[in-house]
Amino acid sequence: MKHAARMAALSERLDRTFLVSGLPNIRYLSGFSGSNAFIVVRPDGSVTFITDGRYGEMAEGLVADLPGADLVVYTSGLWDTIGAALEGSTSVSLEAGTVTWDFLRTFASSIGIETIPTMGIVESLRRTKDDDEVAALSAAADAGDAAFTVLSDLVASSASERELGWALVDAMRRAGGEAANWEPIVAAGAGASVPHYRSGSNPVDSGLLLLDYGCVVDGYHSDMSRTVWMGDEADAEMARVYRAVAESQQAGIDAAAPGVACGDVDEAVREVLRGYGYEEHFLHSTGHGVGLEIHEEPWVRRGNDDPLRAGDAITVEPGVYLPGVGGVRIEDMVLVTDNGPEVLTNSSREMLLR
Amino acid sequence: MKHAARMAALSERLDRTFLVSGLPNIRYLSGFSGSNAFIVVRPDGSVTFITDGRYGEMAEGLVADLPGADLVVYTSGLWDTIGAALEGSTSVSLEAGTVTWDFLRTFASSIGIETIPTMGIVESLRRTKDDDEVAALSAAADAGDAAFTVLSDLVASSASERELGWALVDAMRRAGGEAANWEPIVAAGAGASVPHYRSGSNPVDSGLLLLDYGCVVDGYHSDMSRTVWMGDEADAEMARVYRAVAESQQAGIDAAAPGVACGDVDEAVREVLRGYGYEEHFLHSTGHGVGLEIHEEPWVRRGNDDPLRAGDAITVEPGVYLPGVGGVRIEDMVLVTDNGPEVLTNSSREMLLR
Repeated sequence: MKHAARMAALSERLDRTFLVSGLPNIRYLSGFSGSNAFIVVRPDGSVTFITDGRYGEMAEGLVADLPGADLVVYTSGLWDTIGAALEGSTSVSLEAGTVTWDFLRTFASSIGIETIPTMGIVESLRRTKDDDEVAALSAAADAGDAAFTVLSDLVASSASERELGWALVDAMRRAGGEAANWEPIVAAGAGASVPHYRSGSNPVDSGLLLLDYGCVVDGYHSDMSRTVWMGDEADAEMARVYRAVAESQQAGIDAAAPGVACGDVDEAVREVLRGYGYEEHFLHSTGHGVGLEIHEEPWVRRGNDDPLRAGDAITVEPGVYLPGVGGVRIEDMVLVTDNGPEVLTNSSREMLLR
Repeated sequence: MKHAARMAALSERLDRTFLVSGLPNIRYLSGFSGSNAFIVVRPDGSVTFITDGRYGEMAEGLVADLPGADLVVYTSGLWDTIGAALEGSTSVSLEAGTVTWDFLRTFASSIGIETIPTMGIVESLRRTKDDDEVAALSAAADAGDAAFTVLSDLVASSASERELGWALVDAMRRAGGEAANWEPIVAAGAGASVPHYRSGSNPVDSGLLLLDYGCVVDGYHSDMSRTVWMGDEADAEMARVYRAVAESQQAGIDAAAPGVACGDVDEAVREVLRGYGYEEHFLHSTGHGVGLEIHEEPWVRRGNDDPLRAGDAITVEPGVYLPGVGGVRIEDMVLVTDNGPEVLTNSSREMLLR
């Protein structure tokens, strides 16, 4: 049902035949979760779903639920198959952010009808999360929260960064999540000064610990970061950094309302860090949308005047990194609603790990 | 050292400035394992490595090992950064299989120098695996083999498909592998007739079981499939399918020698399946190269006249799928050498699981 409605919403927006090639877009429109498919959608609502022999059986059930949709399963001759599906169209819109230059060149030489670049057509539909999607995002966020609770025990056992990362993945799985396509970032001590640190065999038992991890439920991602101090009293400098980041993150969450420009949420975060003298140590942007992709629209970054909308699911994740010393990042997932920001990740934001 | 040599081998092949954008290519050339970077390589051997603030510290150490290389870390203004690195070049080669149409359009409007499409320049260097790479592939293959040995115990405990998949991942991790960016395929009974089945909650305790899984060591992938029958006596039809696939797979492995066209390896596999009357139930190609990507050159498929070379690491993975009944796939990783095929995955190929 929901896929048929999404497909209908798409075809209503079209003024010419559209070739959907981005896999997250294809999953959103049809439920297809394989690694190779294309969907031709026409303004009259008719649809041709194209995949290869590996996925024929999976696609059959999905396409049967889409009114006006035909399935074509090819074993060789992708270009002939796409060409046949475009028969009768004099031009076609392509997803310029997904198709490669090579695809475009082969398209031109094999099919030859006019190609029109488009950006963000399906992505703009995907941006506003419906109830099913919020439920999946919440379930993924809950699995992340459940994993955070394993922390104290593991730290007591002096696990390595990598072992701790694995324990987080295992705990998320037990809480209903699939592993995400990226390993948890588990960075102890000075490693935490590297925003995208690769976990190693360092033991995790005292001092600073930065975690950034997430999982997938029904295709929807979670993403969260916590930084803790293992021990009774945090280093004074890092405690000040922590206060700055925590205040800054709260300012970002508070600013996340429909109609507020993404860049203004970023500025709310920056303003606090600037006050502490740490703005130059904030090395990335404030956040990103999260859904079928771990990073998607909207982009919560400096200067982006795109206004937030109710139904956006975003991260708010300021960080301050002091090279060779350590870093702090705190990241939550926030659903933008007309009734204020709804934080989907609910793990403790205390610095001291008890 | 090896990265400097690879970069030198690349620059020797260039007749104009080259912008490397594919992440596996960037990892091959520099060791960089983050999610955002570009490398500008010039025919004179000079190199500019570009990444963003998240990866500055990781890139610093890597770029220090590359003679004649500069590092540029940007926090905003990617296009200005690329433009500055291309200063003085009147044209640039781009990787047409990696850059999107949108990238190309933005490049044209932001930088404006002539762009030349190229395909497979770094990939052709990557194709021939050196000793370090073979060691990583072998370690990943060994981790896959180690995981296969957990099978009998788990089947006795009636784990679900998904639990069994997780046990495979856990066993590979204990054997030194990182999880691959895809979940194991664990398909019991008729599910095995779907080449890329999604594992569910079906118990795995009797009858047919198809597994397709792998892991990553130092960035290098393993990929293997086994099909077993759980119980004392296999169904007669599936036993015949198994014999056909096993013979066909051995024929493919035996054919894998330097100078033999990929399509001829595919044909060796097909010929056996044809003899059994199963060719129409072989729904995918025979295999693919494996390395920093799970699917890379060479493509072992019908009609590909590209000859194998010593140093190619490929999969040989015929499968026969009888809709609604079941399927059999057997997949090994094979290193092509001048002294005959070297099979990197060494799990039992017996049908009956003891």
